[in-house]
Amino acid sequence: MNVIEVADPADDRLADYVRLRDSSLRRSLEAEHGLFLAEGEKVVRRALRAGYRPRSLLLTRRRRTVLDDVAAEFSAPVYVVDDAVAESLVGFHLHRGVLASFHRRPLPGVAEVVADARRVVVLEDIVDHTNVGAIFRSAAGLGVDAVVLAPRCADPLYRRAVKVSMGAVFTLPYARLDNWYNGLEDLRRRGFTLLALTPAPDAVPLAEAVDGDGRYALLLGTEGDGLSSRWIAQADVRARIPMAARDVDSLNVTAAAAIACYELTR
Amino acid sequence: MNVIEVADPADDRLADYVRLRDSSLRRSLEAEHGLFLAEGEKVVRRALRAGYRPRSLLLTRRRRTVLDDVAAEFSAPVYVVDDAVAESLVGFHLHRGVLASFHRRPLPGVAEVVADARRVVVLEDIVDHTNVGAIFRSAAGLGVDAVVLAPRCADPLYRRAVKVSMGAVFTLPYARLDNWYNGLEDLRRRGFTLLALTPAPDAVPLAEAVDGDGRYALLLGTEGDGLSSRWIAQADVRARIPMAARDVDSLNVTAAAAIACYELTR
Repeated sequence: MNVIEVADPADDRLADYVRLRDSSLRRSLEAEHGLFLAEGEKVVRRALRAGYRPRSLLLTRRRRTVLDDVAAEFSAPVYVVDDAVAESLVGFHLHRGVLASFHRRPLPGVAEVVADARRVVVLEDIVDHTNVGAIFRSAAGLGVDAVVLAPRCADPLYRRAVKVSMGAVFTLPYARLDNWYNGLEDLRRRGFTLLALTPAPDAVPLAEAVDGDGRYALLLGTEGDGLSSRWIAQADVRARIPMAARDVDSLNVTAAAAIACYELTR
Repeated sequence: MNVIEVADPADDRLADYVRLRDSSLRRSLEAEHGLFLAEGEKVVRRALRAGYRPRSLLLTRRRRTVLDDVAAEFSAPVYVVDDAVAESLVGFHLHRGVLASFHRRPLPGVAEVVADARRVVVLEDIVDHTNVGAIFRSAAGLGVDAVVLAPRCADPLYRRAVKVSMGAVFTLPYARLDNWYNGLEDLRRRGFTLLALTPAPDAVPLAEAVDGDGRYALLLGTEGDGLSSRWIAQADVRARIPMAARDVDSLNVTAAAAIACYELTR
């Protein structure tokens, strides 16, 4: 275990961890270096278990020994810093005291991730990292086999998505469509029934739209506006979660996704 | 409609809207004056439809006419301000351009809100307003009849909870237990089967724990630690949402709540 104490937050060796709340800086930095960050002991362990290779770890002094049992497995440097150095570096108090920077891997193609899948979730343009992370956590926990992302959907390996997913983004296979307009056709050709989840009152109740056999791809749309008319038109079935009255006309996308994944995998 | 243009963010008449992100200030201010805030046209309309009485409205110039059709229904002043005044007052850019301050009403008692209820959700110590709002939205949308809050559960009428709930906190009846330790006994005496939702692998799958008849109270615990051992011990049944493997051992509380409400009300 290669432990290095660092006292200067401007030290180049800590550059992977700079200004974590500056999302435009982080996006370009992470893309350029092909890295992503994991936060907290539990999530870092999950990334390691999933086979991701660390570039480095950053531990606060108080938490410096928490990963000792797995540190033998990798040769990446472990930087140990004071709380104040960590805070100055990342831009907030690092109360979990554990960060790690990992190498990204090449994303598999859609054909590969859906090859043996029976239940797939397809995210159209979910732009909020919190929502992407929450949907991955539910989908993975409930037994969805893979996720397919539209070209504009937010990055599941962005720190906030990783954190909210509790590491589910490491274990649930996903791929990205390179074509929004015709991307769904490929799933249909592979035998998936395309279910568009919508609050439309004339859609079919979800429980009636799914049976035990067959392959299903559940399409989920943007936070505010839902699925595009293009994707709704391409779907085989428009499915809804039955709603009571009470002046509430829809669920939020993560709640709807959780229920739909539950129904899809029961 | 009593429209008043205000140019000074320090004007006393705007005091209900000051520093909306300063949560400790807001809590004491709102408690002292018995008010709560609603944000955005849709949510303000829902508060009005639910019969809440406005203290005042705050509209940015660009949005000054959006509530004209309902303004005849109340006599409260409508303050119209520039974007810059709004931002200086509330502490961020008010992009929806619509805020309203409402009088709170006395909370009903537990006996009253559960009197005719068959499906009740009981929140132990959910401390995050976003989670409370999300659970209300799902519970109301899916047809839960009432919510009961433990003494330390976060306030459903706090701005963030109101917003995330999309106004469901106005239409779904709720009450607060004044006693955490023995509060559940009262529900049991009223004929509710107490279901403790837990990820414990030896709990009963939720679908097997609920049948169509009977009265059920679903107990949901704190974000991190789940239900207290006291409440789990008091429950009649420990119920779980069946999980797949994939190194994910639980769902987040709002996803679990959505699925549980779906199962409870189907």
